[in-house]
This record gives sequence, C-alpha cells and structure tokens, in this order.
Amino acid sequence: MSVTTPAGFVAAGVPCGIKESGDRDLSLVATADGAPVAAAAVFTDNKMTAAPVVVSDAHLGASGGRAAAVILSSGNANAATGAQGVADAEAMCAAVATQLGCDATEVLVCSTGLIGIPLPIDTILAGVPALVGARSVEGGEAAAEAIRTTDTHRKETLIPIGATGATVGGMAKGAAMLAPNMATMLAVLTTDAAAEPGELKAVLREAVTTTFNRLMTDACRSTNDTVILLASGQAGPVPSRDLAAAVTAACGDLASQMAGDAEGATKVVTLTVTGAASDADAELGARQIARSALCKCSWFGQDPYWGRLASELGSAGIAFSPDTISVSYGGVTVAAGGVSIAHDQTAVAAHMAQRHLDIVCDLGLGNGHFQVLTNDLTHEYIDENTGGS
Amino acid sequence: MSVTTPAGFVAAGVPCGIKESGDRDLSLVATADGAPVAAAAVFTDNKMTAAPVVVSDAHLGASGGRAAAVILSSGNANAATGAQGVADAEAMCAAVATQLGCDATEVLVCSTGLIGIPLPIDTILAGVPALVGARSVEGGEAAAEAIRTTDTHRKETLIPIGATGATVGGMAKGAAMLAPNMATMLAVLTTDAAAEPGELKAVLREAVTTTFNRLMTDACRSTNDTVILLASGQAGPVPSRDLAAAVTAACGDLASQMAGDAEGATKVVTLTVTGAASDADAELGARQIARSALCKCSWFGQDPYWGRLASELGSAGIAFSPDTISVSYGGVTVAAGGVSIAHDQTAVAAHMAQRHLDIVCDLGLGNGHFQVLTNDLTHEYIDENTGGS
Repeated sequence: MSVTTPAGFVAAGVPCGIKESGDRDLSLVATADGAPVAAAAVFTDNKMTAAPVVVSDAHLGASGGRAAAVILSSGNANAATGAQGVADAEAMCAAVATQLGCDATEVLVCSTGLIGIPLPIDTILAGVPALVGARSVEGGEAAAEAIRTTDTHRKETLIPIGATGATVGGMAKGAAMLAPNMATMLAVLTTDAAAEPGELKAVLREAVTTTFNRLMTDACRSTNDTVILLASGQAGPVPSRDLAAAVTAACGDLASQMAGDAEGATKVVTLTVTGAASDADAELGARQIARSALCKCSWFGQDPYWGRLASELGSAGIAFSPDTISVSYGGVTVAAGGVSIAHDQTAVAAHMAQRHLDIVCDLGLGNGHFQVLTNDLTHEYIDENTGGS
Repeated sequence: MSVTTPAGFVAAGVPCGIKESGDRDLSLVATADGAPVAAAAVFTDNKMTAAPVVVSDAHLGASGGRAAAVILSSGNANAATGAQGVADAEAMCAAVATQLGCDATEVLVCSTGLIGIPLPIDTILAGVPALVGARSVEGGEAAAEAIRTTDTHRKETLIPIGATGATVGGMAKGAAMLAPNMATMLAVLTTDAAAEPGELKAVLREAVTTTFNRLMTDACRSTNDTVILLASGQAGPVPSRDLAAAVTAACGDLASQMAGDAEGATKVVTLTVTGAASDADAELGARQIARSALCKCSWFGQDPYWGRLASELGSAGIAFSPDTISVSYGGVTVAAGGVSIAHDQTAVAAHMAQRHLDIVCDLGLGNGHFQVLTNDLTHEYIDENTGGS
C-alpha cells in the first residue's frame, strides 16, 4: 500500500481502453468520504503546457487549494490538443465529481503518453463510473499500476512522519530520464497529517527542488509534469519540519526508483561537480555532463574517459581552469591537475562494471557543489523512442 | 586537388605511427617556398583548450599573423595533457620549421583524436622529416586523408573567387555531429588572393559564424576546433566582397560534407525555426531541438512526431505560445494553431524516408528566424562512442 496507507484515502486503477494493450490506463486517488482536503501541486514550467496542467492549476486556484480526488490517465498526454484538450480534461474532472458528489473544481487531473493526439474522451468518460466504483483502501497498487507508460514496474513509497504516527504515501511514474524535458513525471502523494494548503505548497516545492529536479538531467520539464500532495488531516497536526522531511524523503525515494528504471539504462550515475566557483556553476556543469550523449555513451561502454567530462565542463560557460580539474570514478582519482595520473585501473574497471556509478569532478576553484542523478545512453533507449506517435 | 590548387602551396600526408591501423596520421600544408604568408585562424572557445590551440594562437600573435606551414596530427588530440602537451605541440612546430628553414612561430599546429592521453611525441618527431620531404602540389589529397578520424571519407573544397582567377581551396575533418562540443572540427583553407592578416581574420570569422557554427548543434566547441586560412598572394589582390563570398562558400561546402558524414547518421536534417519573437529566440529554439535525443530518435524512426519539437520549443526559455505553433515536414504542414491537422500522410511518410529532411517550426509570434543543420541519433553512433579511450 502507498497512497492509501495514510488514513482517509482510497484509490483505484482500471483499464478503460486508451492503451491498445488492454493494460490499466485510468487511475484515481480520492478522499475516502469524497470531501475536499488541503492540496498543493507543482507543475511543469514548459510553456507547451498540456491541458490537464492548465485545468488542475485552475481548479486549485478556484477551490482555494482543496481537492477531493485526482484522476490520472496514461497512454495519451492530452498535450498539444488545443481548446478541445482543455474541454476534455474538464470533462474528466466533471465526471469524477458527479460520481463522488463534489464540485468539479475539487478534482485534479493528470495525463501522460503521446503528444499531439486528441484524447479518446468518450472511452475515458465511459470508464469513469467503473473507476470510481472500484475505489478502496486496497486500491493503491492498482492506481500505481495504471499510471505506467514505459516504466517497467510501478513506483510507490511510504515514509513515517517522525514519531508522530502519521505517514506520507506516494506513487509515481516516469522512466525516460535521458531526455527529461520530454519525460513526463507524475506523482501523487498523500498524508494524514493536518496542514494548510499554503504550508503544503511550500513543503512540496522545496521537496521537488531537491529531489525530482536533481534527477532530471536538464532544467527543462515535460509538457505534463505534475506532483500533487493531498493532506487528509486525520492524524492531526505534526511539526512542520517533520512533515517537510517526510515529503522530501518520499519524493527522493520515488526519484531514485525513477532513475533506476530509466528507459534502456544500464547505468545509474551519481554525478557530483565540486570545487566550482559557485553552486550555480557546479549545477550548470553537472547538467551539461548529464545531457551529453558522448559522456552517456562512455558510461554505457564502461569507459572511464574523463577527458569527455572535462571537455563538457570547459564548454559549460562556467569558471574553469584546465590545470586544476581532477576526476574520480568510484573514489579512485584518474586525473588531477588537468592530466591523467597513475591509478588502480583494476579498481576503476570493477567500478565501471557496476550498475551504480559514482563520478566526481573537482574543478579545484572554490566551494561550489551540485549533484545530479543520471544514466547512460543505450541502443534500447533509441529503440524505445524511434516510433510510436 | 584542394589546398594545393591555389598557387603557392604544397601539402603532404603520411603515416607516422600514431594510429595503430597504420593509416596516414600526419598532415602538412605549407607555402611552396617555405616563406611565411598572411594567415588567420578561428579557434574553439572551450576553456579546456587543447595544447595545439594554445600554441597556434600564440604563434599567430608572435608572428603578426603570418605562417609558412600547418602541421596536423590525427589519432591523439593532445588535449588535457598539461605543460607536457604544450611542449610537445611546440616541438612539432620546431621540427617543421627546421625542415622548412622558417621560424617556429611561423608554423601552426592542429591535433585531433582522443583526449587525456600523452602525445606520442617521439613517434611524431621521427615522422616529420618524411612528412616535409613528401610535400608537393599533388599532396592535397594525401593531406586531407591524413586528418581523418571517424570520417568515412576525406573532405575537400575548391571555390573560385568571383571572376578574378584566384581560388579558395580547403580540407576539413569532423564527423561526430551529434555532440559537436566533443567533435573536433579541423579545417585548413588556402587562397592565392592577396590579403592582409586583419582582413583574413574578419573574413574567416564571419564565414565560420554562418557555416560551421550553424552545423554544430549547440553553442559549445571541442577542445581542439580550429579553422585556418593562409593567403599566398600570388594571384594578387581581389575585391574583399568576392574573397568573403568565396571563403564562406568554401566553409559552407565543407560543413555540408561534414553533416553528410555525421557519425552513424541516417538523416541529415535542415531544421528551421521561424516566426520567433527574435532571431536569438529562433536560434535558442533550433539548437534546443537539434540537441534533443528524443527529437533525434524520432528522425531515425522516420516519425513526424511534431509534439516532441513543440515540447522542446516550449521549454527552450523563449517566447512561446502553444496556440500559434505550426510544424511542417518536407513542406507539408502537420500541425497548425498548436494542434494536429489533416494532411497528406503519404507525402510526409515519403519525405521522412529520405536521407535529407526539411523541418520547419513556425512559432507564429514574429519575424525571428534561424536554421541549423543536424542529424539523427542511431545505434551506430552509440557503437562509435562507447569505448576507445
């Protein structure tokens, strides 16, 4: 159980026919009694904003930060679908509201899948009664299954809020980490802690910044990225610091699961840039490496080719000296002072053969530091992304 | 013939043993009499500057923009090699100068190949006498062969300067277009027109901006990128405008050959972003698409998945409206007003099956315009870049 473990929530996941495979493609997380509770969301900043993002954002505004349910569909992103797309997303919310007996503005909506194709709205609306009817406290697993696209497995989390007895539960989807600006990431978190919408928003925004946004390999976002947090309040108030820590831990756990399930990836890379003139420089450098096809290929090839990393850093538009950079793989320094140095090649080769790589680039200039979670570039990634529109 | 067609130049290309394959790996372009002539160069702006770039830049400064020869080696980039690398590059120049009887500062040097590995300088120095001894007016082809790395064929050009009878000749290497910030591009151009170093510099810089820099899919440069222009003056002065046009045409021809030989590419894509709020916005948008792994995969898959292009533009940090974008493939508009429209799918499929794709994204906002030459992402690219350090 995950989103339904915190008291006061139910969930469901059913197939309605969006996916040709017949797999589950419609998901629901709702309050047990259908009444709205405090809610917050963080959305993509992509200007090609998908219709469900537009609608969910408007609903949270209209309801004053309260929601009774989230409906999620997978297989079609309802993005680049114009006014019809917005009408379709509104219709999804209205259909759920009718079943639950709440206001349509108290329902949020997410979609993930292909872009630029009209949503099969009749198929979805026909499936909503069965979806809502299937909701239960045992429905968390089915709900997490129903939001998968290229994910190889469902992603769930459950984190206690300090010693309060309250918890944060969550589910997420997202697997195309190599080009995160297209990789829709959806997450729904629930908690039985009591909190006002404003506090939830602040907690969620901070958690996303230090977790999902460091998983993404550049600063861009998909058309549909959405993270939603609902708070039933049934466990009563908790220390704000504990709530923040638990939400951050839940987001971090889901982000790690997403990194481990990156499309076609054979390597999960923890990449640290340190010794930069500033944290901002370190971030620019780390993101430049993380989106470099040549660096990603070297990881796939298990090749500790540090010169590629150095070249990316040298062209990242940051303070850089070719004479002070050092690079290590798995804690073994292979280059220092800008040149290759003698090192334990057997140890490096053994590290490069692992699934998890730990790479540190020290610019030797200052105290700036940033870490991203990224992965390699493989044939399988290309195969997953060469067709299908 | 190419670099040796303009009067006053000789060239050579020989194997000296840098490449294990035994292929030619040492190249020379020189004045026929060994005397220095007007010269200019444009170098990479990567701060991880390779030793030959440091040395060539210093030599042009010391000689007041004059050079008698360029020596080029392939197989090892002499980059990330520290003080020893600079000493090695100086030694290459000195060895050529001894043979030609000119000053070492009148010799320029370029290297291309792997990064972070000490140059096999003894091997190279042992080969210099044979290289210089082999120079002739028939040596242009051998010189162009000797600078290849992953290029599948040599790249040469010859452009007449208006009706003056003078010409611009050139040779280049460069094939890893998918990640141009690591794809060393070297080019040596010659002309028998007379021009001062200052004029050559201005002409060359402008030509590079509108040709090689639009081929590269982002604003970064390799550690070694160098374009050199030598002017023997033997054909006398020519109108400056004609010289500029011929140099630009020569650079453009070489850039097209490089695009067509991109590592593993099956598609050469002319990508235009128009209707942007400004030319700068159009450039940012075009470069964002050109470096997107997902867009590149869609081209490999011959898939007119316009939503991926729109999402990249929406996250490029430029003025963008989801309601005004239109996209065409091969002149057939598949999306307008931000949504898919009915179109001739057979015509689009036929276009996507071609090697050369013509894609236009119109943002519908203003008059900003930019065009880049890019390519797809394939299995073969990954295979070429997964090992070999």
